[in-house]
Amino acid sequence: MGYCLGYALIEGGDAAFSMDASAVTFGPGALAEVGAEATSLGLRRVALFTDARIGKLPPVDEARRSLERAGIDVVVYDEVHIEPTDRSFVEAARFAAEGRFDGYVSVGGGSVIDTCKAALLYATYPADFDAYVNRPIGEGREVPGPLPPHVACPTTTGTGAECTGIAVFDDTRRKAKTGIASRRLRPTRALVDPSATRTMPRSVVAASGFDVVSHALESYTARPFSTRPRASAANQRPMSQGANPWSDMGCKSALDLAGRYLLRAVADAEDEEALEAMAWAATLAGIAFGNAGVHLPHAMSYAVSGLCRSFTMPGYPEGEPLVPHGVSVVVNAPSVFRALAKTNPSRHLEAAAMLGAETRGAGPEDAGEVLATHLSGMMRAAGVPNGLAGVGYGEADVEALAAGTIVQARLVANAPCGVDEEGLRALFRGAFTYW
Amino acid sequence: MGYCLGYALIEGGDAAFSMDASAVTFGPGALAEVGAEATSLGLRRVALFTDARIGKLPPVDEARRSLERAGIDVVVYDEVHIEPTDRSFVEAARFAAEGRFDGYVSVGGGSVIDTCKAALLYATYPADFDAYVNRPIGEGREVPGPLPPHVACPTTTGTGAECTGIAVFDDTRRKAKTGIASRRLRPTRALVDPSATRTMPRSVVAASGFDVVSHALESYTARPFSTRPRASAANQRPMSQGANPWSDMGCKSALDLAGRYLLRAVADAEDEEALEAMAWAATLAGIAFGNAGVHLPHAMSYAVSGLCRSFTMPGYPEGEPLVPHGVSVVVNAPSVFRALAKTNPSRHLEAAAMLGAETRGAGPEDAGEVLATHLSGMMRAAGVPNGLAGVGYGEADVEALAAGTIVQARLVANAPCGVDEEGLRALFRGAFTYW
Ligand SMILES: NC(=O)c1ccc[n+]([C@@H]2O[C@H](COP(=O)([O-])OP(=O)(O)OC[C@H]3O[C@@H](n4cnc5c(N)ncnc54)[C@H](O)[C@@H]3O)[C@@H](O)[C@H]2O)c1
Ligand SMILES: NC(=O)c1ccc[n+]([C@@H]2O[C@H](COP(=O)([O-])OP(=O)(O)OC[C@H]3O[C@@H](n4cnc5c(N)ncnc54)[C@H](O)[C@@H]3O)[C@@H](O)[C@H]2O)c1
Ligand SMILES: [Zn+2]
Ligand SMILES: [Zn+2]
Repeated sequence: MGYCLGYALIEGGDAAFSMDASAVTFGPGALAEVGAEATSLGLRRVALFTDARIGKLPPVDEARRSLERAGIDVVVYDEVHIEPTDRSFVEAARFAAEGRFDGYVSVGGGSVIDTCKAALLYATYPADFDAYVNRPIGEGREVPGPLPPHVACPTTTGTGAECTGIAVFDDTRRKAKTGIASRRLRPTRALVDPSATRTMPRSVVAASGFDVVSHALESYTARPFSTRPRASAANQRPMSQGANPWSDMGCKSALDLAGRYLLRAVADAEDEEALEAMAWAATLAGIAFGNAGVHLPHAMSYAVSGLCRSFTMPGYPEGEPLVPHGVSVVVNAPSVFRALAKTNPSRHLEAAAMLGAETRGAGPEDAGEVLATHLSGMMRAAGVPNGLAGVGYGEADVEALAAGTIVQARLVANAPCGVDEEGLRALFRGAFTYW
Repeated sequence: MGYCLGYALIEGGDAAFSMDASAVTFGPGALAEVGAEATSLGLRRVALFTDARIGKLPPVDEARRSLERAGIDVVVYDEVHIEPTDRSFVEAARFAAEGRFDGYVSVGGGSVIDTCKAALLYATYPADFDAYVNRPIGEGREVPGPLPPHVACPTTTGTGAECTGIAVFDDTRRKAKTGIASRRLRPTRALVDPSATRTMPRSVVAASGFDVVSHALESYTARPFSTRPRASAANQRPMSQGANPWSDMGCKSALDLAGRYLLRAVADAEDEEALEAMAWAATLAGIAFGNAGVHLPHAMSYAVSGLCRSFTMPGYPEGEPLVPHGVSVVVNAPSVFRALAKTNPSRHLEAAAMLGAETRGAGPEDAGEVLATHLSGMMRAAGVPNGLAGVGYGEADVEALAAGTIVQARLVANAPCGVDEEGLRALFRGAFTYW
């Protein structure tokens, strides 16, 4: 047995990890570069994806004007569904297919960016909807070839979707969230402009901020890359290749930033320094989880979102039950880390410390408790619902939640230890209430 | 005035920075993936670049067999000149042009990787040699279009050339080193296999290790990106865009690793952990300086190498005077940092601390001295020549050295403050001897 940068190499395990490319421009004003960026990509007619609310705010206007000044035809699609569904993806794809676009720009949160990814995929390589959807829910077919350019401009400080090759949706036929995953879906360039996030409602700051925290915590504690079977080349490694030295760097920076700035950003919408730090944390966590993969809190969140009956949250579209992604993830997180910290106590303790927890005097056996307590303390302070009960679930739902999670094969396999449905039920039971 | 992640924004300055993509696979055994990698790039006939010494060592054999097992035609070119020259670039380009290759693999140190970049450029878009060479020495013409795939496999723990879009050479006509710089020259993928570096002579470990240290120190202390004029889009930012939050992350990790492992790697060729850590540090520093740019120690090194009369170093090709790149850089470094630390004392102190210096009790006015002393202590312990005098230069050369440096416009402009020839002469004089 040897080591690769501190990771123990096991017989038959992968001794190497691959780092994928993300081209990002970060900084106030980055959004105004979209016209020049599209020109340098040779675009002449682009679809500009957004949602109805952001469509009325300055960032979309700014992007449209920048594109038009560059002499580019722009058609706006503002019908993105928040927490997209199979149906909303299909409608967006129809718009994309009919518009004869040579490129795509998305301005919005993860819902917008993911919808744009799906739309350009189905418009370019038409197929039955299930074709590209992850197995075992869909057929998991490979994206057949290159995709047209996509410049992604996030307006939330959360998903990192601008740096990943994943598009997540709610499968209304099966009442389950799932996704499409391919390196080819990764946007050509991300323009991360913190000033585009200034109008986020407080609840969106909180939900998307905890999404960042969870991306970093899950990537940092995921199954080590070196315990996955050996791959023959970079494109044979799953995007969820497990924790590795490259993703570790991004996770650590993101946790440190979120520990210092998340509650500040939630408390004060005018705190530009905090918002900017969270935008950067979101980018770094996105690069990290795009190269490592998340695990159980996300796998479980797909069931939590998919089975939602009546929960609504202020700041999100009204009239439709919905558990915002970041909330659906973080309600599971303390329970998962409390139970799984024993797989690698020192990493979980380190993560807690980076988030700002007091870890002096804590031993390996305390790691789960320290991290879970600190995280739920942050949730409480940010006004996030108190666990699964806080978003409307009880004992009667545990069976269905676990069943909806076990099918998230890609993410369950990326957990630091094997987990079966029984284990998932226990994790959901541990997530009912935290304070 | 505002801030972007701690960087002060000034009127007319750039408020955003761009992060460019590097696709890397890292780990023992990564070299054996070259066949599968080439297959996934669709290659059928590749040129395998190396130098005469590495050509006889296991890594080249391993790469050739991996390619052949994948059914790919391989033609080896082992005539790379160590510290390449205009002439050696032209010869390599002739080989590339005549071979009708659809892709390129380089296995070697920076000399090999850079020669491969230049060869595939001139073979793809033939031009007079000076056409693509950096201004003001050459014409600085843009690379006209995309280049064929290039998989770069470093065998030194140094240059990071596998992650950069730069090809450096010694212009024998002008007795000056300079380079060709374009994002398009960046290799398609780097396969960084620490086991390919095991046979490095001790002097190569030292020289290439100090190259890593200098890449990180220079990128970390370069002119802040936010003081450069505003760019309209990512491809309008120079690759030497200045220090920024993204390169800072890589620099810090590389300095921390080099501080702990460089002297261990030099002292004991069997210390695999140290070698691996230095390989990772080299990659991280390469990504960082590829996104920030180096400054004076490198600019000055081009004159130090270019004007070399008689210096030779054990472990490097015999019979030809040559100052190895890493040595030609680091002999200038203590003098530069001693003089320039005042531009940003806290960064220079932090860098010293990351390299392992004792900084308790040191104030801003001590920053230059602390960093210079620690760095020269490391040089001495590693058996690196003692400053400019150690590589054969004296007062009589100062004029020519400064004149050879001032033309490195791209790098001089990336220094944290303006420097003229008079200033360069003073910096060279400060670099004569350190102990
Ligand atoms: N692709 C990935 O890698 C990835 C990763 C994590 C999450 N996701 C997905 O992303 C979605 C969540 O995205 P999100 O958290 O960014 O939020 P979102 O896109 O769902 O938006 C949430 C709400 O905030 C509003 N909003 C967004 N930006 C605003 C702004 N600047 N000002 C005012 N209002 C604003 C939107 O209109 C919407 O009502 C989920 O579907 C989730 O599954 C994808
Ligand atoms: N493109 C860039 O971004 C960049 C950055 C820094 C330096 N450089 C350039 O790279 C060159 C220096 O490269 P380098 O420091 O990697 O060294 P190198 O390629 O010049 O090699 C130095 C010596 O070490 C030998 N060698 C290399 N690997 C070996 C191994 N594993 N076992 C035994 N011998 C080995 C070589 O045969 C050679 O004799 C210079 O020309 C420099 O200007 C380029
Ligand atoms: Zn998420
Ligand atoms: Zn160098």
